[in-house]
Amino acid sequence: MENFTFFPATKYVFGRGVENQVADQLKVFGMKKPLIVYGKGSVVRSGLLDRVRKSIADAGIEHEELGGVQPNPTDDKVYEGIALAKEKGVDSLLAVGGGSSIDTAKAIAAALPYNGDFWDFYCGKAKVTKALPVGVVLTIPAAGSEGSGNTVITKISDMRKLGMGSDSLRPKFALMNPELTFTLPPYQTAAGITDMLAHIMERYFSNTPEVEITDRVAEGVMKAIITEAPKVMADPENYDARANIMWSGTLAHNGVCSGGRVEDWATHALEHELSALYGVTHGAGLAVMFPAWMTYAMRENPGKLAQYARRVFDVEEADDTKAAAIGIERLKDFLTSIGMPVTMKGLVIENADTALLAQKVTESKGDTFGNYIRIDRDTARRIYDLAK
Amino acid sequence: MENFTFFPATKYVFGRGVENQVADQLKVFGMKKPLIVYGKGSVVRSGLLDRVRKSIADAGIEHEELGGVQPNPTDDKVYEGIALAKEKGVDSLLAVGGGSSIDTAKAIAAALPYNGDFWDFYCGKAKVTKALPVGVVLTIPAAGSEGSGNTVITKISDMRKLGMGSDSLRPKFALMNPELTFTLPPYQTAAGITDMLAHIMERYFSNTPEVEITDRVAEGVMKAIITEAPKVMADPENYDARANIMWSGTLAHNGVCSGGRVEDWATHALEHELSALYGVTHGAGLAVMFPAWMTYAMRENPGKLAQYARRVFDVEEADDTKAAAIGIERLKDFLTSIGMPVTMKGLVIENADTALLAQKVTESKGDTFGNYIRIDRDTARRIYDLAK
Repeated sequence: MENFTFFPATKYVFGRGVENQVADQLKVFGMKKPLIVYGKGSVVRSGLLDRVRKSIADAGIEHEELGGVQPNPTDDKVYEGIALAKEKGVDSLLAVGGGSSIDTAKAIAAALPYNGDFWDFYCGKAKVTKALPVGVVLTIPAAGSEGSGNTVITKISDMRKLGMGSDSLRPKFALMNPELTFTLPPYQTAAGITDMLAHIMERYFSNTPEVEITDRVAEGVMKAIITEAPKVMADPENYDARANIMWSGTLAHNGVCSGGRVEDWATHALEHELSALYGVTHGAGLAVMFPAWMTYAMRENPGKLAQYARRVFDVEEADDTKAAAIGIERLKDFLTSIGMPVTMKGLVIENADTALLAQKVTESKGDTFGNYIRIDRDTARRIYDLAK
Repeated sequence: MENFTFFPATKYVFGRGVENQVADQLKVFGMKKPLIVYGKGSVVRSGLLDRVRKSIADAGIEHEELGGVQPNPTDDKVYEGIALAKEKGVDSLLAVGGGSSIDTAKAIAAALPYNGDFWDFYCGKAKVTKALPVGVVLTIPAAGSEGSGNTVITKISDMRKLGMGSDSLRPKFALMNPELTFTLPPYQTAAGITDMLAHIMERYFSNTPEVEITDRVAEGVMKAIITEAPKVMADPENYDARANIMWSGTLAHNGVCSGGRVEDWATHALEHELSALYGVTHGAGLAVMFPAWMTYAMRENPGKLAQYARRVFDVEEADDTKAAAIGIERLKDFLTSIGMPVTMKGLVIENADTALLAQKVTESKGDTFGNYIRIDRDTARRIYDLAK
């Protein structure tokens, strides 16, 4: 087991009606004038935003607003938020929505105390050491950003999608009412479920030996997701299934599945280029790229894939490579069962330019990347080809 | 799933040599003059205390000291610490040791900002809303106090052992070096392992339906403990096994196995009376009382015990009561294999006064207690009798 630091400092308030605590929690954390960051769709239509506005106003708390954040959030909205926040003198951020709103809020939170371009943090020129406090009212369980210090933003000028993280960006609080997820469309629900599974698998596929405790926790969260996902798909208003999925999404990415291991994250890198070039939903792109990555990785390094197959999908097969192969099929069956594509064709990408994708991912990540297996440009192309 | 709040605000720094960060972490959390709280044994003999003193002094941080904390820590030491802390004007606590030192530090931390007797918090007269910051250098993985807001203290005058908890008592940081546990005697190692298993089981045995995610996480931590414990017992200097066990002890009790469920804690109540009356080690008392509680509970409410047997001990048996019974035998086999007693005789208690124990536990907990099954005085006596 490797040394690690784990500082999961978010206060999670979970259950029916908890969004009504928003003013209370802002006060607890001394957030006196938040900038509310939200998207453009359901948060407005459902009336949630109005309820949040009203409860904040009733508590005598001022606020400003930045709406219109898009999926795969972009730097232009961050710059708009930074300018607004400076002009209006906000002291904190309140994201109402899913990963895109939260990640945008975190970018603004990091930028305000910093004398420089916020993109410095994303392209690795600077590290976040302080940030304005961020609060969250979560409506989409997927990205896990409500419990992590991570944020991913796309720079429009060159469509580079980069992530960064700092414990100082972990939200101070996250209000998580599963009822707010009842109206998510099935495709978005399934893409979110895939995203959370992927967050665990990026951590799970590690060559660090002797990490039984985090392996077992990760397997437990994966098994719970696989059990609860069909219930959510069959009955979107099943409170308990929605609750299990929502909490799984947080545990998938808040670090409890991480401790003491070298993580992989190659599949996220591969998927980011697919998203950037073909505009696919992140979770759906992961549903395509993970089985392809696994199929390639199985040939070089089947061990952990076999453990995954046996422990998560109850595969009974003594040979590691065979067990791994069966596990990959079971993952694909699962993804298909919740309505996810598992090939690029399923994403309606015909004849993907896999050479270009491979070129772009190595431009972005370096000549080789990934840890469970090392991936170079040629390998990346093979994996993209496997995903066709 | 029930509503819940989970605020796991401790910063864990885990791995080889991390105790050398003690001065750095004190500074990060603004702890300028800590009271170091420690026991009497290995922390002093091993030279750890001297190293902590030196690194704090080298960093220019003043400190005071309260040594001599005993296992099953008592109120007299807390009062001594409160007086010392007030006299010397400390601003924080630094526990160096295991649960006893940490729980004593938490009691002092809660008492200092409070105008009243610290025991008010333990007997339920008052709630902790603020406390001095507490830091930890952990040497005994067992109580999980390094990651929880809980503390248990025994009042000497009537030997009442009571616990209380508040998120404001969660340690700010916990420095966890598995190497510091290499020299723990086998019995203490095994009692600690039992304690952490018990912390999970008290949460796991719940009638709250539809808590798959926390069930799966709890089962994962239990499976990891059961896999790693024999390695630790066979080779006390196996770093990786010690590391897995140490981190399991934290996850067992920091709340990640809790979310959204009514917990039980009846067995802890039953064991506390055994400890108080016969002076047994807490973990060893739990090794005796848990199988007895399970054997009784199995007759009334076998369902979750059967799930436990199947998922944690891989029992393949369709009938719930039979599966539960096999699971209990496997737990006993496991406990025996690591050197724990599973009967009062094994604790060298002959002819325990089970009527008196039952009287005391209902005096302490009320006429009925527990949640997975309700226990009254008569039931308590039966369970104690099963433990003989």
